[in-house]
Amino acid sequence: MFGARCLLLAFRRCSSAPCPKHKQAARLRVCEALEAQEVAGDIKVQGWVRSVRSQKQILFLHINDGSSLESLQVVADPTLKHSDLTFGSAVEVQGKLVKSLHRMQNVELKAENIRVVGPCDTLTFPFKPRERQPLEYSRQFPHLRCRTNTLSSLLRVRSEATAAIHSFFKDNGYVHVHTPIITSNDCEGAGELFHVRTSDKVQEPGENSHFFNVPAFLTVSGQLHLEVMAGAFTQVFTFGPTFRAENSQSRRHLAEFYMVEAEMSFTESLQDIIQIMEDLFKTVTSIVLSKCPQDVELFHKYISPAQKDRLEQMLKNKFITIPYTEAVDILKRAPQTFTFQPKWGYDLQTEHEKYLVKHCGEVPVFVVNYPYDLKPFYMRDNEDGPQHTVAAVDLLVPGIGELCGGSLREERLHFLQSRLERLGLADAYQWYLDLRQFGSAPHGGFGMGFERYLQCILGVDNIKDVIPFPRFPHSCLL
Amino acid sequence: MFGARCLLLAFRRCSSAPCPKHKQAARLRVCEALEAQEVAGDIKVQGWVRSVRSQKQILFLHINDGSSLESLQVVADPTLKHSDLTFGSAVEVQGKLVKSLHRMQNVELKAENIRVVGPCDTLTFPFKPRERQPLEYSRQFPHLRCRTNTLSSLLRVRSEATAAIHSFFKDNGYVHVHTPIITSNDCEGAGELFHVRTSDKVQEPGENSHFFNVPAFLTVSGQLHLEVMAGAFTQVFTFGPTFRAENSQSRRHLAEFYMVEAEMSFTESLQDIIQIMEDLFKTVTSIVLSKCPQDVELFHKYISPAQKDRLEQMLKNKFITIPYTEAVDILKRAPQTFTFQPKWGYDLQTEHEKYLVKHCGEVPVFVVNYPYDLKPFYMRDNEDGPQHTVAAVDLLVPGIGELCGGSLREERLHFLQSRLERLGLADAYQWYLDLRQFGSAPHGGFGMGFERYLQCILGVDNIKDVIPFPRFPHSCLL
Repeated sequence: MFGARCLLLAFRRCSSAPCPKHKQAARLRVCEALEAQEVAGDIKVQGWVRSVRSQKQILFLHINDGSSLESLQVVADPTLKHSDLTFGSAVEVQGKLVKSLHRMQNVELKAENIRVVGPCDTLTFPFKPRERQPLEYSRQFPHLRCRTNTLSSLLRVRSEATAAIHSFFKDNGYVHVHTPIITSNDCEGAGELFHVRTSDKVQEPGENSHFFNVPAFLTVSGQLHLEVMAGAFTQVFTFGPTFRAENSQSRRHLAEFYMVEAEMSFTESLQDIIQIMEDLFKTVTSIVLSKCPQDVELFHKYISPAQKDRLEQMLKNKFITIPYTEAVDILKRAPQTFTFQPKWGYDLQTEHEKYLVKHCGEVPVFVVNYPYDLKPFYMRDNEDGPQHTVAAVDLLVPGIGELCGGSLREERLHFLQSRLERLGLADAYQWYLDLRQFGSAPHGGFGMGFERYLQCILGVDNIKDVIPFPRFPHSCLL
Repeated sequence: MFGARCLLLAFRRCSSAPCPKHKQAARLRVCEALEAQEVAGDIKVQGWVRSVRSQKQILFLHINDGSSLESLQVVADPTLKHSDLTFGSAVEVQGKLVKSLHRMQNVELKAENIRVVGPCDTLTFPFKPRERQPLEYSRQFPHLRCRTNTLSSLLRVRSEATAAIHSFFKDNGYVHVHTPIITSNDCEGAGELFHVRTSDKVQEPGENSHFFNVPAFLTVSGQLHLEVMAGAFTQVFTFGPTFRAENSQSRRHLAEFYMVEAEMSFTESLQDIIQIMEDLFKTVTSIVLSKCPQDVELFHKYISPAQKDRLEQMLKNKFITIPYTEAVDILKRAPQTFTFQPKWGYDLQTEHEKYLVKHCGEVPVFVVNYPYDLKPFYMRDNEDGPQHTVAAVDLLVPGIGELCGGSLREERLHFLQSRLERLGLADAYQWYLDLRQFGSAPHGGFGMGFERYLQCILGVDNIKDVIPFPRFPHSCLL
């Protein structure tokens, strides 16, 4: 029944669809206009007004569309001024791109037409022209702060870093995997978990409201799922949200944050993992610095003036490796008093991590071979009694402390089995034991906190200032 | 106190760290070896044994490392045979890459040394050599099925498509944004929500266990957050997990799935959004076809033989646009009986969508301008009474039905305000109304279900077969 006539009818009808496309002047993004020389013919630029300066003979505007930190200068006849043409308004400007007489810019847009497509109530808008507000102030307006220079630079850097991380792994032959967000894995001991339910109602005892028939949590790490995939693809990575329900309104922790995690089969040496961590840091940082130099510079100029030199040092020098045991020795000999006494067998505290980095000349430090009893079941036993360590590594960086953590994984079935049995986890992790029976190559991997990474390259003190939407104390807004 | 001596000491100590790096034969991935010509010197290949064939004079192996569908043939002296060298075992093979005498391959690896680094218990391993199991069978082994040809091809395609989506948006000047996963937005009516809590315990009435002081949910869409960002960056996108708590063990729905979402400021015509949707589909698909031709071919050959031609048609032809009102007319005139009678003012059902696509010659169809009362508050009023529609668009594709949905957003404050007030949502969305007061440009956007997209290009019937880890009925495993 569906012959050529039917089809023809469909095509004809479709052509009558009310979606006209107007012939328009070439649209240029602000970053394209800034890099262009004079352009023949009219162009159109769309963006938000960052400043309006009206002189007798001439009207000056600065237009920003988020494509770069820099705005485009627009010059116009004062007759084009309009009461809606204010700071913050959304405008379309049509005109000619001409050589600018000013020293600071190549070109400017000589406006022939200015159209305000979205007026701005400047009286109640929380930001004013040419005002640099502290980050704490902007954080009160999570839905508007992306309109400030600082936050828009941050978000461009975040976007470029995201792309650079994907391309680093892709270029090195890794397969990307979306590891589950909702999972029943809760035994890693990585922190407090968020529970996922279908109903928020008060529950009768015994009532089962579990959607998946088992308790379900938000993931704390994709590592175990990546290990599954490393058994087929050799090198895999994930880059997704992870969660901790620790009620930490601190400047160091988030309930929801992003982690880059990688897992590599046929890896028998911690040194290979260390090398990849260092390569990742240096490659991604170099790409970000080359793609958004102005955005990074804004942070190094106004937010954290010491960070520029620090970052250059990090990129130039080879990172240092210290065994945990020697790190504890260094801390014990330190000519300073710590709140937590350094002691073999105990976790390194942030104060210890910062001292170690300083001690090594403000260069990132890999601390390797941690006490067996400190670390989770999947880390590979070094069999180096009496001290007894596992092949784990943490990367400590200046100003931040721990940025990455990784380890060789215990691939030997009997080691893993007896350890899980001692912990009472053998049943829950039968699937994980399965992997070791079916062609499990020696392997290892690591994770890097993405927000910590951004703090590290930009020198941002509060982790809430490197995410798109801060929650506290404004969670109810968004 | 931290002088040169200290620093020197640290460096010297670090050099004693027990992480030796052995000098090794050049390691080649299987895909690299397959594309290489003869290579001077020894190489090393690591992977899993896909077949072992022992002849009197010669031992043949096939090694796969997940870098390609194809395996590398290894030829060895039978004395290198070892009882652990079985199907499924993880091996390292060292030797020389030589020209192969066989018609089907360029090169083969003449082994000098074979090391089994991870034996496989072939008796209990659920997969056997040269056996093609149906997808339902593999789904029982979510932690092992990535070792099969079909699933490893799927996951390579998924990884390439992920990268292609990122690069499509990046190349077109979009800023990537991580929109929140935990959110208090629940008013979109997109479906049942998952609730997020810190405790799974039965609760006393009145007790507040909300981590964020307000009820918190897993996101159903990042759209509203993207709209915030489109007010600063003009063009933004996100590509992350979204959730629906509908207990649908169907082949069409997942509780956790990925969505690509984009939002564009200064967009006044639905046609512009339609153009981007079509470009996205065609560009990403072309990249995937060029990057993993063998993987896609496996699906088109063994899973869905009709899909190859269908996909070629989709790429070759311009997609069709039909207004909703005309779509209903076409359905009413259809020479077939539907379970749901088509009627103006009602949602299109999957049976309707499939008919429309067929009617238009198996080409993707954009249906535009849906009834006002069917759609959420943020869609732009077409002011075209008496019928009264909004500027919404759905993309229907052969075999799947709805793949994408988008709209112009209502940027006019008074329209939005009165609509939210009628719905009793004005307080909850004060922040959203705020955006309209502060330089809100006309804008629009769309979302595309990533799993549906994969189903569409590969012709996979059950959506659970295009995700890395299927849940039902095996959620308790992972």
